[in-house]
Amino acid sequence: MAPAYKLTYFPVEALAEPIRFLFSYGGIEFEDVRFDRENWPQIKPNMPFGQVPILEHNGKVAHQSISMARYMAKKVKLVGSDDWEDLEIDAVVDTVNDLRQKIALYSYETDEAIKESRKEPLFKETIPYYLQRLDAIVKANNGHLAVGKLTWADLYFVALLKYLNYMCGGNDIIANYPNLVALKNTVLEIPAIKAWVEKRPKSEM
Amino acid sequence: MAPAYKLTYFPVEALAEPIRFLFSYGGIEFEDVRFDRENWPQIKPNMPFGQVPILEHNGKVAHQSISMARYMAKKVKLVGSDDWEDLEIDAVVDTVNDLRQKIALYSYETDEAIKESRKEPLFKETIPYYLQRLDAIVKANNGHLAVGKLTWADLYFVALLKYLNYMCGGNDIIANYPNLVALKNTVLEIPAIKAWVEKRPKSEM
Repeated sequence: MAPAYKLTYFPVEALAEPIRFLFSYGGIEFEDVRFDRENWPQIKPNMPFGQVPILEHNGKVAHQSISMARYMAKKVKLVGSDDWEDLEIDAVVDTVNDLRQKIALYSYETDEAIKESRKEPLFKETIPYYLQRLDAIVKANNGHLAVGKLTWADLYFVALLKYLNYMCGGNDIIANYPNLVALKNTVLEIPAIKAWVEKRPKSEM
Repeated sequence: MAPAYKLTYFPVEALAEPIRFLFSYGGIEFEDVRFDRENWPQIKPNMPFGQVPILEHNGKVAHQSISMARYMAKKVKLVGSDDWEDLEIDAVVDTVNDLRQKIALYSYETDEAIKESRKEPLFKETIPYYLQRLDAIVKANNGHLAVGKLTWADLYFVALLKYLNYMCGGNDIIANYPNLVALKNTVLEIPAIKAWVEKRPKSEM
């Protein structure tokens, strides 16, 4: 029987990887469709709002990667224990996504002069500003990004890290943040995540 | 007795207004703190990740406006009836937020040449691309943005509209999208929302 879930994305980790981490964590089978970049122009017009990843389930199509991750987190029980805890989790996920977008604004800028002008503020101010605060949150939360225990916020951040580093030119942006490094290790040592990372297709981002 | 919730923001609607709509819809009292812009430099360092709005409740502080809106939506029962419905609601909210960010990238650009270069793509391509699709979604969803009934996605979009229009130079961006106009009217005619809009402090955005 075909898996109940089908995830479609570019042949990379990036925005789909948090969802793949959640499937793996929960031991939920999924069809991991990775299309060739050369086919994107044909695929894009059929995607909701022209974007991927999409998630197909029971004949329905969902979009927006964070929304999908939140849905899967409920299925694999990596959510909070009440509505306020879920608010704390959602807020830190949105904050990590804010950081991702600020990095992307630099990384995907095609005008070299504009890109260069964004480099120093990003690396000297924005990234340290976010990572110092995220590191302090992990320290105050028993090694996690929210509510003192493992949640989908942790998987979201760690799954996205390689993409963040890629956009930053390959630098390990968390190297000087010991609590974030420890969080990365915590997540990557979860047996189901470790097994997924070992078997997943290789990609640069 | 003081209200159980305290919302702090600039003296405008913008990102706080969806949350204020949800409080109003549910008849939940809240302290609506609006600080003077001149005090922002003193306030900013004490805000989580330097941003507002924040929501205070039971001695705790939350940030990230969409996360807060989702929390309040649960309290006032404007959520889906199952996890997949909540995924659909979350996805359309994130999509409206994508549109907001694309508009902001134009509106808040301080380099006039860069701003001018973004104008035509935004108004001729991006905004119509999003609004055509959102209009079709409302048509297909019984007059709503998701799951065929009133949800917090509807309140989120309508509460944000004045801010979107403000960033677009005062144009009514939905004027040519009849299903979105009808949705706006539906939300603004809810008695509790209507009463809030009549009594709220006046602001330009």
